[in-house]
Amino acid sequence: VPKFPASLRDLATPALVVESSALENNLRRMSEALPGERLRPHVKAHKCTALARMQSEQGHRGFTCATVREMEGLAAAGLGEDLLLANEVLDPRKVERLAALAAAGARITLAVDSRETVAAAARGGLREVVIDVNVGLPRCGCAPADAGALATYARDAGLEVRGVMGYEGHAVGVAEREQREALCATAMRLLAEAHDQVGGSLVSAGGTGTFDCNSVATEIQAGSYLLMDTAYQSLELPFEQALFVMGSLLSTSLAGERRFWVGDAGLKALGMDHGNPRVDGGEVWFCSDEHITLSAAGDDSDFALGARIRITPAHCDPTVAYHDALWVVDGEKVVDRFEVDLRGW
Amino acid sequence: VPKFPASLRDLATPALVVESSALENNLRRMSEALPGERLRPHVKAHKCTALARMQSEQGHRGFTCATVREMEGLAAAGLGEDLLLANEVLDPRKVERLAALAAAGARITLAVDSRETVAAAARGGLREVVIDVNVGLPRCGCAPADAGALATYARDAGLEVRGVMGYEGHAVGVAEREQREALCATAMRLLAEAHDQVGGSLVSAGGTGTFDCNSVATEIQAGSYLLMDTAYQSLELPFEQALFVMGSLLSTSLAGERRFWVGDAGLKALGMDHGNPRVDGGEVWFCSDEHITLSAAGDDSDFALGARIRITPAHCDPTVAYHDALWVVDGEKVVDRFEVDLRGW
Repeated sequence: VPKFPASLRDLATPALVVESSALENNLRRMSEALPGERLRPHVKAHKCTALARMQSEQGHRGFTCATVREMEGLAAAGLGEDLLLANEVLDPRKVERLAALAAAGARITLAVDSRETVAAAARGGLREVVIDVNVGLPRCGCAPADAGALATYARDAGLEVRGVMGYEGHAVGVAEREQREALCATAMRLLAEAHDQVGGSLVSAGGTGTFDCNSVATEIQAGSYLLMDTAYQSLELPFEQALFVMGSLLSTSLAGERRFWVGDAGLKALGMDHGNPRVDGGEVWFCSDEHITLSAAGDDSDFALGARIRITPAHCDPTVAYHDALWVVDGEKVVDRFEVDLRGW
Repeated sequence: VPKFPASLRDLATPALVVESSALENNLRRMSEALPGERLRPHVKAHKCTALARMQSEQGHRGFTCATVREMEGLAAAGLGEDLLLANEVLDPRKVERLAALAAAGARITLAVDSRETVAAAARGGLREVVIDVNVGLPRCGCAPADAGALATYARDAGLEVRGVMGYEGHAVGVAEREQREALCATAMRLLAEAHDQVGGSLVSAGGTGTFDCNSVATEIQAGSYLLMDTAYQSLELPFEQALFVMGSLLSTSLAGERRFWVGDAGLKALGMDHGNPRVDGGEVWFCSDEHITLSAAGDDSDFALGARIRITPAHCDPTVAYHDALWVVDGEKVVDRFEVDLRGW
């Protein structure tokens, strides 16, 4: 019994697919720019152990995670050499889950940004932390000026402070390169100041949009580079679109004089926070729960009932999180099926 | 070993919760307005067999589905007395899956809106269809004037045509009631004209927003009424908000003089196509993959690190589709755990 259909044509839609050549190119280009430990891939973008393994085989053996579930999945897959949970944890049961991973041999480092999160880590028996510093994005992280005192507090609590992290999330998506670089530089000045107070070897920061302009971070936490989406496409990065949602056209009608088509991939197959996805040869009107309504961008000779459409998500992370598997394709050939096995919390 | 934590406080966050009293009230109010077969609940809103069973016990024994997976799950749960797939299917393997359900004793009716979809149904051995009519929403459905000919074509292909369906999706969300009623009435005139040509006993249409003003449909396909969301709240319907995402506050900082808080529920816990969710006592700034950034709406004495926040989704359907379970709560008490078992395709 074959593990999966031989041809893209035979996949039931909607289906999440990854083009293997783009994937390989993205893997290679990033590891040329940021070899080995210079990249700590963020697995939240793909939530897929099989893809993390490819990143590890490329030499990136430390990972960034957003959830305890991601940490557990990587550790269980033997990828627990150096796992950073770049997120705060207060729930003692979650700290306990992390401590269990450490006890089983994984290296577990947790972000802390307050005395409360330090106390939770120490109480739960964790050993290593980084001080998470707010470098301009209104999200987690302590004020840069508080980082030194927090590091002292953590060391006094018996924790090893490996250094700092600080995500310039307000910079990574800025389309204009000079502005992006300037925002990144300002943010990294704050992180460097914090690092001066904190000490330690790690300065962890960055994302796909700043992978080649963040010169302060010792390691970059990029994730989206591997799959890409229309948001990151607009930045003219050296990464190719690898991720698509395949749909099928099920219906067509006229709205006035204008012909439109309806495909079978909608709000439950696509992360929508960045707006509508793009469709090759199409102009997207709107998405519904299980539908996408579109018209042909030019002549519609490729559009027909039953024809496939290739949809490029606007935001890869919340798109992948709707699917239980990724189909790896090489042109028309389906070459593998990867479980999206790190979903949930 | 208990099946679930006893208290809401003990649920790991993010967690999808349903308040049992609101659920019961919504069930009862809808079945008072539309008893028995007058309602054909749409399961796409909750994707949960346990909730469908409650609707069935309330007297609504026919269901509307959006996917083959939903049809299979309901049939497997013994809820296959009268299942309508209100969506077009062309893929012969999907038709085969539906035919297998019919062969096993479920009553399966499929929407068709073209000769191609009729042919797929007939070829796959399905017996019953409804003619899906476009009543103004640019999505599936044939032109009203074509419905009669399509019904004849279907009958000639050996299919039983049970009637028509036509979803006034462009009306259901309109906030102003008179305008909503007018749009619904216009749409239903088109459906009634189509029904005159098609015949059959079913006129299936409607949603939560038109449940009490659609007087043409013999059955209403409402689903969201059971859980509700901020979009439907704005319509002043007699249904209570039953669905929430519980999060925990993990971090707090100042942006200038303004204090903000960060919770642990983000883009992978919330359907975002209708915009940001609402938080009790809070003002939402933005959501990230695993975070929600917000400030207190008034005084922030309820906000503290570790405190719970109650998040009301903007759109229930794509929110539920991110979660593997719904926790049923009665005040602070967790009374049940329902699998969201109808996800996928």
